[in-house]
Amino acid sequence: MSSVQVGPELRLWAVPGLPLVQPGDALPELLLSALERAGEALLPQDVVVVTSKLCSRAEGRFRSLARVTPSERAQALARQCGKDPRLVELILAESQSVSRVTPGALIVRHRLGFVVANAGIDASNAQPARELGEGPWVLLLPEAPDASAARLRHALEARVGAPLGVVLSDSFGRPFRLGTVGTALGVAGLPALWDQRGRLDLHGRALEHTFTALGDQLAAAADLVAGQAAEARPVVIVRGLRFTPSEQGAEALLRPAEEDLYA
Amino acid sequence: MSSVQVGPELRLWAVPGLPLVQPGDALPELLLSALERAGEALLPQDVVVVTSKLCSRAEGRFRSLARVTPSERAQALARQCGKDPRLVELILAESQSVSRVTPGALIVRHRLGFVVANAGIDASNAQPARELGEGPWVLLLPEAPDASAARLRHALEARVGAPLGVVLSDSFGRPFRLGTVGTALGVAGLPALWDQRGRLDLHGRALEHTFTALGDQLAAAADLVAGQAAEARPVVIVRGLRFTPSEQGAEALLRPAEEDLYA
Repeated sequence: MSSVQVGPELRLWAVPGLPLVQPGDALPELLLSALERAGEALLPQDVVVVTSKLCSRAEGRFRSLARVTPSERAQALARQCGKDPRLVELILAESQSVSRVTPGALIVRHRLGFVVANAGIDASNAQPARELGEGPWVLLLPEAPDASAARLRHALEARVGAPLGVVLSDSFGRPFRLGTVGTALGVAGLPALWDQRGRLDLHGRALEHTFTALGDQLAAAADLVAGQAAEARPVVIVRGLRFTPSEQGAEALLRPAEEDLYA
Repeated sequence: MSSVQVGPELRLWAVPGLPLVQPGDALPELLLSALERAGEALLPQDVVVVTSKLCSRAEGRFRSLARVTPSERAQALARQCGKDPRLVELILAESQSVSRVTPGALIVRHRLGFVVANAGIDASNAQPARELGEGPWVLLLPEAPDASAARLRHALEARVGAPLGVVLSDSFGRPFRLGTVGTALGVAGLPALWDQRGRLDLHGRALEHTFTALGDQLAAAADLVAGQAAEARPVVIVRGLRFTPSEQGAEALLRPAEEDLYA
């Protein structure tokens, strides 16, 4: 079992001077060059939090609505939720099932297992820099975020020569609460779900909350630095966590649908 | 409207050397003395994240199950969820309504409006230091977390002479996802829900996600430092955020039940 130690201090900082990423760009090289230019270097057990949007751009997950022909089902749902039927077509293609539909919201269980509005597809910061043809453009989530996180982890670890963590993050809404929070879509190198069973409280009593969503908390913390608007800082380094390497991905954060009380 | 600026760097650190808080203790004094002993001082716009447990202890929210007589309804629910009927009685007294009940889980809409397992009542780190009588002991959430946060904010601002933020946090589970995340129960001085309407993305396009749960993200970030076990660090300072003072509380983070698709 992987162990985690929270330190008394954490530092989060954005990697400065990253270029706007294009399809096919190699993220490890871009990241390491930007760090070098800034006079910074990764240290053992640094956690690199990358927005899923950056990863999607590198993976060329742009889609032009001009090239989408909506099915009848997409057209019917589009009328219910008031969205572009071509966008709804893309949402359905990325989803296992529709969770809730209401004017203004189409909430689905994504093919990757999480429940999210619009299959995480959005148009903010989704413009390809080189004109690929007629828009409007949207960006799908990365094809396989845990695999993308693992590739980035291994490429960075090979250059840095030390164990690192990688989190691919996005901003998701939630039931019951307003506002988006950073959420982990991909995790590599550290336990996404920190199992604290057997640990004791101040009085030597077993903890009641034994699983901590470490990946999601790192994504939420990094989102405080990353921002979403024109200041967007797509890579944030979190320094100060101690963990033994783990092969667990963000998939570990998904509550199985059959165990979910709100599915 | 309050404005927020995320900086390129955040530092989070635990206030060292806090004593185990007792009912009636004055949190501002305890906190400022501990900071002084550590050679630290609060700076303008620091955010002080305090676990709701610390606040509950100071407010004397301890309850002994030995003194609770469960109602018939509590006994029936206790059979369904497999919990102590006396605990269920306390949970019901703190709740507006029961949201879901299943073996192992009693999820309620708390009287304060949020949806949470067991009304946030738990027994970890819930032992009163002076023996108040027969246990087992549990701790209720603070009586009015936004008001507690506001009192702490004003007391600290008066000593420090600068605007500060305060977040009262707890670790909550969620639908769809496993593991707990830090969640804001009380917020003072900064906007709990950051309204980004009108802000633009990298391409000058209006942002799609316009509300960020700033209070919850600060609670999640601080939870990475605070921990829950014997290392528990109940007060974490977040430095590096810029915000204009706000009178909005954590109540702004609650999605009205009638608008919730999963209620």
